[in-house]
Parts: sequence; structure tokens; C-alpha cells
Amino acid sequence: MRIPGTLIAHGGGPTSVLNASLRGVFEETREHRSGRLWGAQGGLGGLLRGRVLDLLRIPPRHFAEIARQPGSFIGSYRGPVTEEDLDRIIVFLRRRDIRRFFYTGGNGSMATALAIARRAAERGFELVTVGIPKTADNDLCETDHCPGFGSAARFLADAVRQIGLDQRALPTPVSLIEVMGRNTGWLAAAALLARNRPDDPPHFIYVPERPFNPDEFLTRIDRLLRKQGWVVGVVAEGLRLASGRLVHASSGSNRDAHGRPLTGDVAARLGLMISRKLKVRVRSEKPGLLFRAFASFRSEVDASEAFEAGRFAVSAAVRGESGVMVTLMRAPSRRYRCSYSIVPLERVAGRERRLPLRYLAGPAGIDEDYIRYVAPLTG
Amino acid sequence: MRIPGTLIAHGGGPTSVLNASLRGVFEETREHRSGRLWGAQGGLGGLLRGRVLDLLRIPPRHFAEIARQPGSFIGSYRGPVTEEDLDRIIVFLRRRDIRRFFYTGGNGSMATALAIARRAAERGFELVTVGIPKTADNDLCETDHCPGFGSAARFLADAVRQIGLDQRALPTPVSLIEVMGRNTGWLAAAALLARNRPDDPPHFIYVPERPFNPDEFLTRIDRLLRKQGWVVGVVAEGLRLASGRLVHASSGSNRDAHGRPLTGDVAARLGLMISRKLKVRVRSEKPGLLFRAFASFRSEVDASEAFEAGRFAVSAAVRGESGVMVTLMRAPSRRYRCSYSIVPLERVAGRERRLPLRYLAGPAGIDEDYIRYVAPLTG
Repeated sequence: MRIPGTLIAHGGGPTSVLNASLRGVFEETREHRSGRLWGAQGGLGGLLRGRVLDLLRIPPRHFAEIARQPGSFIGSYRGPVTEEDLDRIIVFLRRRDIRRFFYTGGNGSMATALAIARRAAERGFELVTVGIPKTADNDLCETDHCPGFGSAARFLADAVRQIGLDQRALPTPVSLIEVMGRNTGWLAAAALLARNRPDDPPHFIYVPERPFNPDEFLTRIDRLLRKQGWVVGVVAEGLRLASGRLVHASSGSNRDAHGRPLTGDVAARLGLMISRKLKVRVRSEKPGLLFRAFASFRSEVDASEAFEAGRFAVSAAVRGESGVMVTLMRAPSRRYRCSYSIVPLERVAGRERRLPLRYLAGPAGIDEDYIRYVAPLTG
Repeated sequence: MRIPGTLIAHGGGPTSVLNASLRGVFEETREHRSGRLWGAQGGLGGLLRGRVLDLLRIPPRHFAEIARQPGSFIGSYRGPVTEEDLDRIIVFLRRRDIRRFFYTGGNGSMATALAIARRAAERGFELVTVGIPKTADNDLCETDHCPGFGSAARFLADAVRQIGLDQRALPTPVSLIEVMGRNTGWLAAAALLARNRPDDPPHFIYVPERPFNPDEFLTRIDRLLRKQGWVVGVVAEGLRLASGRLVHASSGSNRDAHGRPLTGDVAARLGLMISRKLKVRVRSEKPGLLFRAFASFRSEVDASEAFEAGRFAVSAAVRGESGVMVTLMRAPSRRYRCSYSIVPLERVAGRERRLPLRYLAGPAGIDEDYIRYVAPLTG
């Protein structure tokens, strides 16, 4: 009897630990001897051009190396998936007798996974679909946190700590650090980990969950400068005014797959405003892709959870679970411990989890309680 | 007999290994039992307000910890030093019977050290003055390289390598990384270390030593996009047009101590130009201060050389050398080895060492030969 195959594809930007999830799927598939394992090269865009890779041909030793690298060994895709594409994907899977489909990604990718699961059902094609969470932004619903986030938070906290030491020695006097996270402040808020003493940076953290008020921002910086003479702050890329408009939308051709403008260089823009209004020197930094790519400093907790999430996806699929996403659950114990479960894709697809209001407090703008949430994830 | 004291002050921005140089001075002063060791808190600006620290009171065990941190334990200063300040510094040193003065910094700081040495001579005050090189920009003359540079180069190379893996998996399609270095391209050029295969990033490196031509830049990116579909490039912050004008000067109050505008966000500016002219999506990243502050990833070769440079400064001062700067010399052996020497401050003060023309070649804009220069410094 021929065992039906499995295919894994990635959607959206990679992370420091995405290859660890791929390895988890690889190892568990080998262990279960559950047929061939295909990797879509270049995501669904590649799959639609027939570009798939026979992953079980890669020696496990080599896979261990791949798992330590950032980026995505099999590539990814962020283009649109049309109605026709859905049918072509089903045709492709049917032709190769692929009955299990794993898709890693964020909320947009989970919407795509759900669409594929539904189209398969409509076409009478029995396909087990399992989503594997993956986003440095940590904005997926129904999971305590997402693989990729802990490493980004670890890098951010250390970067802010070290920039803080630099600025304490020779203040700019204003230094702004821009942090990714789209419409949410999960990652930006993690900068709070850098603070040990009350006057340690970051002196403020602005997240998109709170409408941005330029006057309040300038007043705060002015007050901090008068009080302590220097200030290092964190601003999330997705800051919005009370009107809902982005504080800085990119111009030119910087648009997402749906034609919407992306966030621009927010720290640079705000820095210009500060230097003009307050007449002080300002630096702005944007580590950008390093948050999700600087694997030399990744969180080992994050890497191991990404691996386990991949393994869990396979065992869920073997049990016949379908139309679900793997979730990471935090045990209610004093010591941090993560277990895995599943949730229907409907409950995560296209939704966005924002930083809960209870975390938006304290002098820096993020409550100390948040540290208990984020610290264990940074390894 | 009372032994005259020593004072050390820092000028300009710190580095990942500046505290290692401080520790070198500390250890060697203890070893020679050569009197008290004062640290100017907040550089010469702090000294002028009488803020000095008795460094030998710090337990050596604690100093070993300090030496691992970025920033500057005793602070630094980048403000102007006036003619009156010079006299006040001499008065301060004379009053405390401080006869040895160490000053770490770049070419501006060495000019200040020279001014202090000259003023002391004019006032008939016997002062031994020794400069200790320190700059992530690597632009000091007469030394093979500068403490602080190797760590910045190491971080840059790894950052570009990892951003490259990220962009290979899901290209933006254009990604620009901005690198510090003022008017020189030493640091930006070190991104070449990230390349293993011909199509690895960085696909180009633009340094200030070559006049920047916007049309050539756009043509090159367009050609790369047509050829390979994605491009990751490095641009130095100090790029200038053929006219000598900065490609992007900051506006607002972002000026240096002499009132000259600083470099602005060059990658963001060039990114905007690309997305408007070529109609493609562009990302720009500016790790900024992380180049000189991300000590978690510093070069151990750099840290140990910074320590040795501090020690060598003390032994040179004990020998009575004055009006000199410590230099790092590369032995002409196959295996990298660094020795230390001195050079008169006149030969480095206020001068700037630019990347030699012989390194400006090859498809990415930097010659492979440069790798032999920079690789050993990254540890």
C-alpha cells in the first residue's frame, strides 16, 4: 500500500526559528514513516510553478544545520492566492497523492490555509490541513505566543540594553529605536526587559494599541530631557493617530500585496519632528529585519518550541485532526512550561491579537507584568 | 615620595570594547604600582566640573565585568574644548599632581590630546600625554586598525549574512542596509565578509571614497533586479555626491559640535528614490548604534587588543613617551598577529584615513583583498 504524502509550505516573512519548525515536521515524519515529505520551494507561489523539494532526501545531519539558520530553507511567499490558485493547488496535491498539508505563517497565512482546507472539501478531496504558527510579531489569536517571537524579543531587549549603555555614556540626547510588529506592540513592549533600574532605557515605549498623540509625545520627551538630560525610547512601526491614520505611511511603491501602503520609517520621521520642535539632536535606529533574522542571538526556548510545534503538527495530522492550527499553551505553574494543542483555523484566520489593555500602564507605557509574560520566551 | 597620579578620559562615542581599554590601563597601573588612577567622569566636560573617579578603588574582579560591557563606564564627551578649557584642565591636573594623561578616541580626540600636551608645555607643566586609539569607524591614521572596529565589522558581517538568508527566502525585492563610518567606508566594506557565493548579499557596497552617482546607482539596481530578482545592498552613511554634498544631510537640530549638519537617514532616502523611480518595494534598515554597542557579539580579538592597547599606553608613559598615540601594527606574517607601537600625535590629530583606492574594485564595489585585511580583526 502506498502511503499518501505530506507537503509543507511557508507563508510570509521568515523568522530566526522557522527552519526549526521545518525540522520538527521532518523528524516527526521520518519517525512515523508517514510517506514522502514535500517542501514547496518559494511557498505557494513556487508550488504553483511545480517547484517542490523531496525533503526526506536531505540527511538528518544536514537538517540539524539548516535548523540553526535564519530565513527559510524552502523559501516563502507573500503574494496573493487567487480563487484559481486554490483549485490549482488542489489539483497539484491530488495528482501527487499528497493528503496532508502543513502551512506555517501568521494570520494571513492561516486564512490561506483555511481557504485551501475549504476548497479541498468542496472538491471532495480528503486533505488534512494543519497550520503551524510563525510570526515575530506575535499577533496570532488563540495561542499564548508564536514561534519566532521569543528570539525577536531577546534580540530587542539586548539591543536596547546595549544602546542604553552607549547612550548613558554619551547621550545623543534623544535616541529612538523603531521596532517591527505591524499593527501590534507585542515586540516593542518586550524592550521593557532591558530595564533594571528606574532610569534605565527604554524611557518610553509607544505601541499601536494606544492612539499616538504627537503633542503628548513631544511634551513627554521635553519633560524627560529636563529631568535627566537624555532619553532612549522605543516606537513601534505601526503607530497610528487617533484618526486611525499611520503616523508614517511609506510612499513610492512600498505597498503590501493588497496595495495598501506599508509603514514608513517611523523613528526617522518622529526624530525629525523632535529635532525641529525641541531643537535637540536626535538619533533614530531601525534594526528592521534583524529582529526576525539575527539567529546568532536567538532564544533557545523559542527554537525548541518551534521544533516541537512542527512535530506536534505531524502527530495531530496523523491523528486525523484537520482545519486546525497548532497552539502553544502556557502551563499555569510557577516555572514556565509550554505544551501544545490545536484550535480550529476559523478562530485565527485573518484575525489579529493585540496587546491586552492591562499591559498598557506604568511610566514607560508598558506594565511590569508584561515581563512575566515575555521573559521566559527569550530563553 | 609621593608618586604622581594618572588620569584617563574618553572622547567621542563609545564602542563595544572601550571598557576593555580602560581595564588595560587599570591593570597595568596596578601592576606598575604607579600611583593613583583617576577616571574623568563624563569626559573632559565632566573633568571641567571636577567630576573624577578614583579607579583603583574598584575591585579588579568588578573591573573584569565592566570590561565586558559596551558603552563607557566613566562616560565620554563630544562637546567643544575651548582655549580656556585647556588652561583649566592644566590647572586641574597640576593641583591634583596628575602627571600622566591618557585620552582614548578618534582623530578629533587626538587633536584635543595634542592641544592639551602643547598647552601643558607652554605652561611649563611636565605632562606625559598618550592617546589610545578608539573608533568603530577605523579612520585613524598611522595605525593598522583601531580598537572598536573589529567588533563593529563582526556584527555587520553577521547581520548582512542573516538579512541575506531572510531576503533570499522572501525578497523585498530591494533591501538597503545603512552602515556608520562618517566620511569613510572601512566599516561598510566589511559587509563583504558576508559573501560566500557570488550571488550572496551584499550585492553592492557604496562607500564615501567613491563619489555617489544616483543614475549609476539606479541603473545597477535595475540591472540586478532583472538578472536575479532581488538585491540586498549596503550604503555607508557618509555617501557624497561628486559635488561633495552629502547624499542625505540631516535637517532640524542634528548638527555636530561645530554646527555642521550630520548625515541623515541615507538608506531610507535612497530607498524612497528607488521605489519612486523603479516602482518596486524597498526596505531600509539602519542598525545604527548597534554597530558600536552590540557587545554580545563583539570580536574577542578586538576586545583583547583594546585591553592590550590600554596596557601599552601605561608602559609607554612609564618609559616617558609623551605626545604620542598607541598604534596597532600587523606583523607581516601569514598568521595574523598584532603588536603595539607609538606614533607622534601630530601625525594623527584631526587627520582622517580613508579606504585605500586599491580596495575599491570588484562587482560589489569592494575588492576581495579587503577580506584579508578585515577578517582577522573580527575574531
